Amino acid sequence: MAHYAETTLRVRYAETDQMGVVYYGNFFVWFEIGRVEMLRQLGVRYRDMEKDDDCHIVVAEARCSYKRPARYDDPLRIRTRVAEARSRLLRFTYEVLHEETGELLATGETVHVICGAHGRPKALPPKYRKLFSDTHPAPAGHTR
Amino acid sequence: MAHYAETTLRVRYAETDQMGVVYYGNFFVWFEIGRVEMLRQLGVRYRDMEKDDDCHIVVAEARCSYKRPARYDDPLRIRTRVAEARSRLLRFTYEVLHEETGELLATGETVHVICGAHGRPKALPPKYRKLFSDTHPAPAGHTR
Amino acid sequence: MAHYAETTLRVRYAETDQMGVVYYGNFFVWFEIGRVEMLRQLGVRYRDMEKDDDCHIVVAEARCSYKRPARYDDPLRIRTRVAEARSRLLRFTYEVLHEETGELLATGETVHVICGAHGRPKALPPKYRKLFSDTHPAPAGHTR
Amino acid sequence: MAHYAETTLRVRYAETDQMGVVYYGNFFVWFEIGRVEMLRQLGVRYRDMEKDDDCHIVVAEARCSYKRPARYDDPLRIRTRVAEARSRLLRFTYEVLHEETGELLATGETVHVICGAHGRPKALPPKYRKLFSDTHPAPAGHTR
Repeated sequence: MAHYAETTLRVRYAETDQMGVVYYGNFFVWFEIGRVEMLRQLGVRYRDMEKDDDCHIVVAEARCSYKRPARYDDPLRIRTRVAEARSRLLRFTYEVLHEETGELLATGETVHVICGAHGRPKALPPKYRKLFSDTHPAPAGHTR
Repeated sequence: MAHYAETTLRVRYAETDQMGVVYYGNFFVWFEIGRVEMLRQLGVRYRDMEKDDDCHIVVAEARCSYKRPARYDDPLRIRTRVAEARSRLLRFTYEVLHEETGELLATGETVHVICGAHGRPKALPPKYRKLFSDTHPAPAGHTR
Repeated sequence: MAHYAETTLRVRYAETDQMGVVYYGNFFVWFEIGRVEMLRQLGVRYRDMEKDDDCHIVVAEARCSYKRPARYDDPLRIRTRVAEARSRLLRFTYEVLHEETGELLATGETVHVICGAHGRPKALPPKYRKLFSDTHPAPAGHTR
Repeated sequence: MAHYAETTLRVRYAETDQMGVVYYGNFFVWFEIGRVEMLRQLGVRYRDMEKDDDCHIVVAEARCSYKRPARYDDPLRIRTRVAEARSRLLRFTYEVLHEETGELLATGETVHVICGAHGRPKALPPKYRKLFSDTHPAPAGHTR
């Protein structure tokens, strides 16, 4: 398993604002697309995770650093990493790159807790935990 | 009961696009706000209608005619009418006006069917039907 | 040139609402994606059309008929046709199909006028008009 | 001048997602509404700041901590503070509260740089700097 998942998308007109660049809130929509694609490449369809296992990946923290503007029709590459995977917490990091120039447009991070449909926190079922644990290096000095 | 309900809102930066005006799809968000306020003025909270009576007002048709652009920070008035209320169908019409100049920016219409949570069409419970029937004139030649 | 252009996309989580299906206003975002892809297949990048030729395709009318709900993660196919192309008016029609089942989820239409950056209507430059005229059949009884 | 500005809004149906709560990216739209209202209470219309002074408040960093979900139709209060105002950098903090229960739903922060229309950083004109400097306490040990 690669240490990251990638997905590409093209900036939509609806995502721009009157400054002529992408509205800042939309980067978080792209992060979500990156997360879902990361899961898909791990063999998990998030829609099944919600439906079949009542596991909702609820956002607890989100942040983004904007380096360069994204513009209408730009082809983008979203690179997603699992930075941390514990039984009750997941942390993803993101890079948004211009697909053609390779320029880094933004970096970001989201932290999540696992919840049932009614919002009660729960532990990630072992089958999922195992998948995630393979995607990121063990912390230095930590024996597993 | 007035023949229409009104609500006001201010254009958000997020609603503009790079043409410097509001993105056309956002007018449908405002129509939905107009609908909900129409219901509220009839004494119905749509969230309760969904939760307590399993009545979802599902959109079957939507259209909008754009007359003049809406711009960032414009104060707008959404005027909503119940144009038709049958047991299984509701039709609303909308006007989007500039609050200060009174200019008509757009008109629109949505047609809805009533559905349960799982998408199965159902009749609108009589308590709601009665409310709606008072909001619009009877068709000509129709005795109630 | 085919009589229509097609593009595919996957439903984003952000596009759903609490009814568990795609919010109705988002279909208009997909129509816009369909339009842009239609232009791209005609050899036109809409961003250049705005920048280089000061031609903005402004929406005058938009409508959508919703047949079946679109759900999170559904793979969709947007099929776009140029239904009418006159010097000052463009009309597109759309079909939204489920990519795997082929089911028709929605149909729609948008009518546009051509404007300069400051919103003044103008005629579509001949080089664009020619492209569009090849994409749709001449009206019956009309000799070209 | 109060140390914060407040504005209220009601959660839109379009802002929810299929988890039945507000999609996480939409909190950043509310932060922007909070910022604009903060400016308005300082006597500045942001649209004029862009048009008349070519000052764009460009986002460099954004983050949000989600405490409790916001739900459809919830009345919310957005409380905005100017946490830092330097010649080339502005920092705002936000609290999102449930208007009726007073519960804290989220906190956030955005950092901005001032740019001209073409994205080149510039210093905030003195007339604006003065306004902001009155809204937040001087750092300890700093004489003004």
